[in-house]
Amino acid sequence: MQESFSVVSSSNSYQVQIGENLLEQVINKHKDSFFIIDSNLKKIVPIKFKNYIFIEATEKNKSLEKIPEIILKMREARLNRTSHVVAIGGGIIQDIVTFAASIYMRGISWTYMPTTLLGMIDSCVGGKSAINILGYKNLIGNFHPPKSISIDVSFLETLNNEQIVCGLYEAVKISYAKDIETFLSYLDCSPKLPLNNSTAQNLISKVLKTKKWFIEIDEFDQKERLILNFGHTFCHALESSTDFAIAHGIAVGMGMIIAIQFSKNENLLNDKGIERTELLKNYIKGIINNYISDLLEKYPKLDLNYVLKNFDNDKKHETNSYRIILPKDDGGLVMINKDKTENARQKIIKAYQEGLKIVGYPNF
Amino acid sequence: MQESFSVVSSSNSYQVQIGENLLEQVINKHKDSFFIIDSNLKKIVPIKFKNYIFIEATEKNKSLEKIPEIILKMREARLNRTSHVVAIGGGIIQDIVTFAASIYMRGISWTYMPTTLLGMIDSCVGGKSAINILGYKNLIGNFHPPKSISIDVSFLETLNNEQIVCGLYEAVKISYAKDIETFLSYLDCSPKLPLNNSTAQNLISKVLKTKKWFIEIDEFDQKERLILNFGHTFCHALESSTDFAIAHGIAVGMGMIIAIQFSKNENLLNDKGIERTELLKNYIKGIINNYISDLLEKYPKLDLNYVLKNFDNDKKHETNSYRIILPKDDGGLVMINKDKTENARQKIIKAYQEGLKIVGYPNF
Repeated sequence: MQESFSVVSSSNSYQVQIGENLLEQVINKHKDSFFIIDSNLKKIVPIKFKNYIFIEATEKNKSLEKIPEIILKMREARLNRTSHVVAIGGGIIQDIVTFAASIYMRGISWTYMPTTLLGMIDSCVGGKSAINILGYKNLIGNFHPPKSISIDVSFLETLNNEQIVCGLYEAVKISYAKDIETFLSYLDCSPKLPLNNSTAQNLISKVLKTKKWFIEIDEFDQKERLILNFGHTFCHALESSTDFAIAHGIAVGMGMIIAIQFSKNENLLNDKGIERTELLKNYIKGIINNYISDLLEKYPKLDLNYVLKNFDNDKKHETNSYRIILPKDDGGLVMINKDKTENARQKIIKAYQEGLKIVGYPNF
Repeated sequence: MQESFSVVSSSNSYQVQIGENLLEQVINKHKDSFFIIDSNLKKIVPIKFKNYIFIEATEKNKSLEKIPEIILKMREARLNRTSHVVAIGGGIIQDIVTFAASIYMRGISWTYMPTTLLGMIDSCVGGKSAINILGYKNLIGNFHPPKSISIDVSFLETLNNEQIVCGLYEAVKISYAKDIETFLSYLDCSPKLPLNNSTAQNLISKVLKTKKWFIEIDEFDQKERLILNFGHTFCHALESSTDFAIAHGIAVGMGMIIAIQFSKNENLLNDKGIERTELLKNYIKGIINNYISDLLEKYPKLDLNYVLKNFDNDKKHETNSYRIILPKDDGGLVMINKDKTENARQKIIKAYQEGLKIVGYPNF
């Protein structure tokens, strides 16, 4: 069973297709396109086209310094303004191709086949890229949505639990951010691992349609879409402080718990809010305990002062205040500006301490 | 007398302000912004702000390879998503800042003060950038219009005849492209050099409002705006074949005459079309004779086979056909696809020969 729906963006309207065994279809349809493929998929993607490159999905390759190589390959394949690119891979491949396709001859069209759950259930729609430059992670980026997205859930078989959980944490975040009904409905159908294809397809469809609401109402991150950064400000500092030993999606899960603790300590939540955030905390904790508890043991020791320093440097803050997405009142998310005072810093450290304890982080 | 009007784009609506002595105003309004200034203007722009860089307006600096340096300066000045950039300079500075501002933290706002007539009368609106990469000229670029444009015609005093003519040729092109009335009305008020400020202001206002029509109806170069490439396909090959000894605007003038010859040889024009294109040819020739005839003597020898090779490589063509903007019937512009045959190549060379002879190119 295939399913499809469309997403409206300012530059184009694009189609999202979800199903099994779509890879062959996409390849046959785009034989003349230029393929950019995660090098991990060498054995999985049949090379039935002329123009392609494989790229290792590393942070180093997701950098402006590497973009010229890719543009050069596109030029050598004589791509022009009417040419098309097909990207097959996870978030890093998506970032690279979004950026490269957006600037090549002022933008050419592309098709995206996400191959991670995070790509399928979250990042494939919205059109964002994030690119490293001179060692600064994600300092640059832009918006250039694909012309079409084909989600082949068969790729999920290639993923391990860590990769699946990364997707689930972003998925629950999107659902939580929308409203209480969407959140509860997500919890109702959140699956046990391993995921089977039909469960995955239902879940992906449900969550992407929620994300569609956010990006159609606020494509360029001005207002509603900003609350999808829930957990992210706390999470980025965890990632950078551990040299990215913690995968992004896992850090988002931890970041949401830390944000909830911050809200509780600030007395931002009423009884309903406490109840709603407890549900989310329990969901996140449950997944860690059930599926990735072995991972935690491998995470490096965290120095919370160093974490705070990285938190300080997050690009989302303003000059004199922290900008944090927090649950407030009945648990709905809002963006809060908090003056950069010593008092605020102490509260941030406290929230990290409590949150990391809750998730069972071994060493901080 | 100041004047202002707005341009609507998909991402924002921006204000264009035209007048004298606006520099001081802009600086006072944006003291906290990050200034990027053409290094030729060191003696003209008073440094009454903290964060700034000067950039030499060279093709080498208008390259992706140089972008990291600029992004680094922006990061070191601690610019965040709410920060603002002010660009003061001609087309190269505009290209660099459009691109850098568009990717820094996924896009920050900027103000543009064009300082060349070409910048003031044409490129400042529309939001396009064109950036070199690995030696390929303008292979990449994007769209990121400024939040506001302040045109201070006092900068015109700093320009020589060649720079003024570059602006006039793009201006007559825009006016010709719109319709016969707009073209005739442009010819009526096209000034003798040197330009005085009030004449310049009227002319700039008139032409920008014509360009506004094109970019509001077709921001992303899909249809109507494409005909503003009139003259450009022929012109790019002249520029690259002479190692850019011919300034872009001058080459556009020559390119339009060559395109007209191509149309005539193809019998695309009726009597009215002949009449209208003759008016344009005479205007272009007249300006060369009156103001820049000394320049022609300095241009390098052209090898037309090499010119044709560069014409072939223009990014606007499709795989199997040339895409050229040509006057047709009564002289209105259309995009024509011409199969890449030997016959077509001969006709292109013939048009170059005739066109270059008409403008008095000394050596080809």
